[in-house]
Amino acid sequence: MKNMSSMGLIFENGKLLILDQQLLPHQEVWLTCKSPEKMTQYIQALKIRGAPLIGVAAALSLAAFAKNGANLNEIISAAQMLRKARPTAVNLMAAVDRVVLNHVNGDLTVDTIAQRAEAVFDEDVALCDAIGEHGQSLILDGDGILTHCNAGGLATAGIGTALGILRRAHELGRNFHVFVDETRPLLQGARLTAWELGRLGIPYTLICDNMAAMLMRQGRIQKVFVGADRIAKNGDLANKIGTYSVAISAGHHKIPFYVAAPPTTVDRDCPNGKAIPIEQRDPDEVRAKKSPATCDVYNPAFDVTPTELVTAYVLDRGVILRRDWDLQ
Amino acid sequence: MKNMSSMGLIFENGKLLILDQQLLPHQEVWLTCKSPEKMTQYIQALKIRGAPLIGVAAALSLAAFAKNGANLNEIISAAQMLRKARPTAVNLMAAVDRVVLNHVNGDLTVDTIAQRAEAVFDEDVALCDAIGEHGQSLILDGDGILTHCNAGGLATAGIGTALGILRRAHELGRNFHVFVDETRPLLQGARLTAWELGRLGIPYTLICDNMAAMLMRQGRIQKVFVGADRIAKNGDLANKIGTYSVAISAGHHKIPFYVAAPPTTVDRDCPNGKAIPIEQRDPDEVRAKKSPATCDVYNPAFDVTPTELVTAYVLDRGVILRRDWDLQ
Repeated sequence: MKNMSSMGLIFENGKLLILDQQLLPHQEVWLTCKSPEKMTQYIQALKIRGAPLIGVAAALSLAAFAKNGANLNEIISAAQMLRKARPTAVNLMAAVDRVVLNHVNGDLTVDTIAQRAEAVFDEDVALCDAIGEHGQSLILDGDGILTHCNAGGLATAGIGTALGILRRAHELGRNFHVFVDETRPLLQGARLTAWELGRLGIPYTLICDNMAAMLMRQGRIQKVFVGADRIAKNGDLANKIGTYSVAISAGHHKIPFYVAAPPTTVDRDCPNGKAIPIEQRDPDEVRAKKSPATCDVYNPAFDVTPTELVTAYVLDRGVILRRDWDLQ
Repeated sequence: MKNMSSMGLIFENGKLLILDQQLLPHQEVWLTCKSPEKMTQYIQALKIRGAPLIGVAAALSLAAFAKNGANLNEIISAAQMLRKARPTAVNLMAAVDRVVLNHVNGDLTVDTIAQRAEAVFDEDVALCDAIGEHGQSLILDGDGILTHCNAGGLATAGIGTALGILRRAHELGRNFHVFVDETRPLLQGARLTAWELGRLGIPYTLICDNMAAMLMRQGRIQKVFVGADRIAKNGDLANKIGTYSVAISAGHHKIPFYVAAPPTTVDRDCPNGKAIPIEQRDPDEVRAKKSPATCDVYNPAFDVTPTELVTAYVLDRGVILRRDWDLQ
């Protein structure tokens, strides 16, 4: 297999490495990922995250596993394990199915698995580029832009989805300012998006999630860009917890709310947001040693934003207004 | 002066003690407050907080200062310092004015200052009781109730405003469940409201601020109760940052949004929310060692909720629907 690398993942000489996203931004530690089992653990612990990237990582992990001599049963069983690592992002399931589970035995050779995994990686890079190119046209000089969580180079194999759009607009010389929701409880905005924007030289200001509405009222936010973990057939989408609140506030202030995603995020078998499974995570992520140690906690990792609150979807094939979504 | 005590403040044998609210819930440490200067520092560091309580504390601090022999100039200068400790909650200014700055020299004796400070304390207790009594009637069996920040016994000399209502309903045997916004960046919900509700035996669930909208959509929240730091003449109100976002989400889901406050929180000299000064605080409160160390941060301690988003005000004299506010 050829060598591949992105901001958060390296495949080199048959070895798979991931950047531990739990330690960013203060430490940059690369972890070797020797097995699909290890990759499953890393995905569950959010050491690697981002809907497109966990699909890519699962695919490469299966390819490396096959290359290292795993037999057919082992590969299928590993694929089934990876597929269930997290329930909400459909990219993971789509990638595992495409590389292994959609195929019959004869088509599950070391080479065919490797080719398909490489294609998953390469296509994600190309999809991000296309999303960035279409989306950049929406950004004007002087815009204040809000983003939530991290939909950047750390969440994909390429330049990112929502952040890829900002990156492309910045490369084209557009002047704008980004407001970054810290994104409780795990602070992917404060830790990851802030780190990425700093590396890219894009000016930004960090805020708590509960401050975005005030900035909107002050007229300091002109557009919102977020990614997605799953888009249902009707256009409802699951994304990082807090996205729904952002969408409501944007709607209240008549600020455009854009969702950027590759086609691997769209689940045509899922009729609407109610059918998207929402992962519940450890209460200690919220308690964070600050609250009473045993208090009851509700900790959904995602929420669902109904399509009514979306202005447009920025896809690899263009900017699709909400009213045109059903025609797709 | 007589002895007085509340959940977060003790005045005993002329000595003023405050419970360090920055160390709750894991440590209960009482700090001696020997001077108005020390009290100013404690207020600024949020070791004591809550709009009504900082007014009470400032008043008692001035009374103790006078009792300990401070001269007239020293008392007036201390009052001016306390008055400026934090800019948003008008209760602080109202209490200091009432106890010292509204009076001419002849009326600034040790005894008159003490009497007025005692009255500020006693009245706050009575106001909370009245708010609790009026507000409890709004709570029905089976309700899910959202609250933001802490408007409880730790924020007043009495049972609290928003939490006082919940406490009174609980005492009357009403069964309901409270969802507590953790309230970033300083987690007054996770640390203080959770601690208070636990002590009172009221069932609650802690959530991140960005999860409230999802619970509303799920139909799990029937009412929102919050306190206020200043209510302008037109009914706009400043309260802990994030309140505005809660109000927008409540409005979007057609959930009643109630604001509980004593008359000391109403500023009739302030025409509307735009005229309320908003305190900006240290960026490190948001960075919290998680984000890039020097990143730009916006950290307003409060936001303004326009009166249009308020269903009703729960005051000591009753529940005032928004449309009746102007008549008051």
